[in-house]
Amino acid sequence: MSGTGPTDAVATDEEIIDTISVITAKRDGNALTDAQIEWIIDRYTHGGHVADEQMSALLMAIFLRGMSRPEIARWTRAMIDSGRRMDFSGLRRDGRPLVTVDKHSTGGVGDKITLPLSPLVASFGVAVPQLSGRGLGHTGGTLDKLESIPGWRADLDPDEMSDQLEHVGVVICAAGGDLAPADRRLYALRDVTGTVESIPLVASSIMSKKIAEGTGALVLDVKTGSGAFFKSLAQSRELAETMVWLGNEAGVDTRALLTDMDCPLGATAGNALEVAESLEVLAGGGPADVVELTVALAREMLDAAGLPDADPALHLANGMAMDVWRAMIAAQGGDPDAALPSARHTDTVVAAESGIVSRVDAMAVGVAAWRLGAGRAVPGEAVQSEAGVQMHAKPGDRVRAGAPLFTLHTQTPERFAGARAALTAAVTIGEQAPQRTPLVIDRVTVGA
Amino acid sequence: MSGTGPTDAVATDEEIIDTISVITAKRDGNALTDAQIEWIIDRYTHGGHVADEQMSALLMAIFLRGMSRPEIARWTRAMIDSGRRMDFSGLRRDGRPLVTVDKHSTGGVGDKITLPLSPLVASFGVAVPQLSGRGLGHTGGTLDKLESIPGWRADLDPDEMSDQLEHVGVVICAAGGDLAPADRRLYALRDVTGTVESIPLVASSIMSKKIAEGTGALVLDVKTGSGAFFKSLAQSRELAETMVWLGNEAGVDTRALLTDMDCPLGATAGNALEVAESLEVLAGGGPADVVELTVALAREMLDAAGLPDADPALHLANGMAMDVWRAMIAAQGGDPDAALPSARHTDTVVAAESGIVSRVDAMAVGVAAWRLGAGRAVPGEAVQSEAGVQMHAKPGDRVRAGAPLFTLHTQTPERFAGARAALTAAVTIGEQAPQRTPLVIDRVTVGA
Repeated sequence: MSGTGPTDAVATDEEIIDTISVITAKRDGNALTDAQIEWIIDRYTHGGHVADEQMSALLMAIFLRGMSRPEIARWTRAMIDSGRRMDFSGLRRDGRPLVTVDKHSTGGVGDKITLPLSPLVASFGVAVPQLSGRGLGHTGGTLDKLESIPGWRADLDPDEMSDQLEHVGVVICAAGGDLAPADRRLYALRDVTGTVESIPLVASSIMSKKIAEGTGALVLDVKTGSGAFFKSLAQSRELAETMVWLGNEAGVDTRALLTDMDCPLGATAGNALEVAESLEVLAGGGPADVVELTVALAREMLDAAGLPDADPALHLANGMAMDVWRAMIAAQGGDPDAALPSARHTDTVVAAESGIVSRVDAMAVGVAAWRLGAGRAVPGEAVQSEAGVQMHAKPGDRVRAGAPLFTLHTQTPERFAGARAALTAAVTIGEQAPQRTPLVIDRVTVGA
Repeated sequence: MSGTGPTDAVATDEEIIDTISVITAKRDGNALTDAQIEWIIDRYTHGGHVADEQMSALLMAIFLRGMSRPEIARWTRAMIDSGRRMDFSGLRRDGRPLVTVDKHSTGGVGDKITLPLSPLVASFGVAVPQLSGRGLGHTGGTLDKLESIPGWRADLDPDEMSDQLEHVGVVICAAGGDLAPADRRLYALRDVTGTVESIPLVASSIMSKKIAEGTGALVLDVKTGSGAFFKSLAQSRELAETMVWLGNEAGVDTRALLTDMDCPLGATAGNALEVAESLEVLAGGGPADVVELTVALAREMLDAAGLPDADPALHLANGMAMDVWRAMIAAQGGDPDAALPSARHTDTVVAAESGIVSRVDAMAVGVAAWRLGAGRAVPGEAVQSEAGVQMHAKPGDRVRAGAPLFTLHTQTPERFAGARAALTAAVTIGEQAPQRTPLVIDRVTVGA
């Protein structure tokens, strides 16, 4: 009945392509051809004959039927080709070419690692071009965190970026609208059509932006556990392997660490709270798990940059990472000495019983921070720099009934009730010390 | 990441419903609850918070995950509830209540059966309210065929319908816009999103309209073969069983015949050509297969109306069916004595070799008729009453090289080339007579 009429089809040497034939091919479990993928991404992004309702049907078919590695590679490439590709290969310092290494995390609660990590790696003379995003839902965004620093601005043009990379060595800023614009449209569509948690779609979304960004090497922090995108280790591993394969296929030296996100990272979730915690790490202190992961990811990035013997912990201890941080903040208009904003209202959640903490649920803490005002429900909404959750107990800690578990921060005290509700079952207290899960579960490299 | 924000959700006693939770439930292979189905159909049809791109993602999930019988029944009921329900229970003739029986065919090439069948059944004193549609693609629509009769009009209001049913006994007209409006929107969306050929979606689409129409009994002609909606017998049988179950669940005595649509029905495909062939049948002649199917479906309809011993062939032979036809055409403004329009241009396709015809491909003939102008590519397009294909050989016939296989009719001779191309491999000529498939393959009743 359908698809028999004249359409806006194109004929290549081998096939005739129209929107419905692409949808039905995937619906019926077939691999999409290169020409089909290029056609549909191009038409969807640049207007003409692929409507949102058609793309969402295709996305659901991809969600349920999957894509092969070559299909994902072609899909990723088509998204890159939908926009401008950046190029940092011309960067120089003291007349010598600069090596670029970037890092991407699939996101988690309390994940402020980018903040200490990027200046730490740059302190070894490696350039770190970190294009970041804003948060949506229970995970915060790196730009939202940095915007709690008075004066700091996220929007730089490409010349400013290159200049800062050559002179400071690190830039954390917003990705331009012309970087993989197909991904921007597809992500917004997936968000409202129940097609977010698909490995081919997540992997191509992340890697299209990172490859288009023009970094020479890339280290991925792929989270697994209750606060992560994918809850199961098997799915997280498949995501990591797919992205590592995609990056190397595109000529970017890409590796991944699979890391635990069952428990929140560090002792804070919230924008200014996480900046403060990052400053502790840059000053040589900070929570053990944040330091451990920062150092592990820095080692991986420095190894990718040809510095396998560099010692990241040294530059945290001797202030060299902090110096780069200060220069980076100042270069983007921020005042590294300004006081961070703090919340007008705080509230405390206490332990109901005595015992040993066996679990702190990352998702519950993330939702609580979000409800306090740290995150947004829809893109474009303002966030509270001051809002968030401080955690006073981690798995393995002994607590007494009545001792504080969390301090809640907000500018708007009517938000406390919702946050407390989210935290009702966030902490499990038992009689025995929990089995320790390693923070870094595995390392995924090409061919592994 | 998604679905954590405030949404336009509703909370029932048992669940909180929003669009994404309905999509992801089906995506993950769960049955939709009654409340979810009612909510999503109501919101989609009457505006508010279910966008086309969300519905199409759900439709693809239904296509790939399926629906259980109870889910399909609820989906069908929700589509009926989206609009007005007609009621013919008050019809009277000579003071006695009239029994109503309708027929629906899933569509095929050369399927003009409604035209002789409806007046034939009405000639036994049964009321036949036949709400029909227009064609799209390779199958023609009943209304398009009747509109080749000068003066005949398809649009009647409910009072005109009731009046005609009481006085003539049969009405074939267009369904009003308020009959299952959800189906209208869903069908248009399915047509462009590759989600047409799904048994739950086809069954609920057909049955929602037929149940809303208010008929007391229903006989379905479910086609199978190359020219049918579903090509395989197993799928066609499942469609028939699903629709028979749905109808009886809703209190409509529903049965189905599974019939062959590998070969076109009768000797013509096209609007005026099919009316002329129907008139032959009503005059006691006509092609054997058209007569056979007309009589078989009439027996089933008369049985459902409580007249198991009625002899339909008698009313074809004695002119009583023709009398009702003439009254029906005249009641809707048509002139039963007017000459039917005939094409200005004809062309002939001849046999390339001598032998016995083993196959005439229904789909090829349907596409040829469509290309000649008998059908439309997009809804609303005009069709040529005069265009179509006459078939001169059926499976089992002996032909000589050079003998005519098809006569092509059109007002626009530039269409001949496309039609000839569609017919290139339409006829298979061999040395042996083909095995005969029965026209009526099986009968499907409730509990069968």
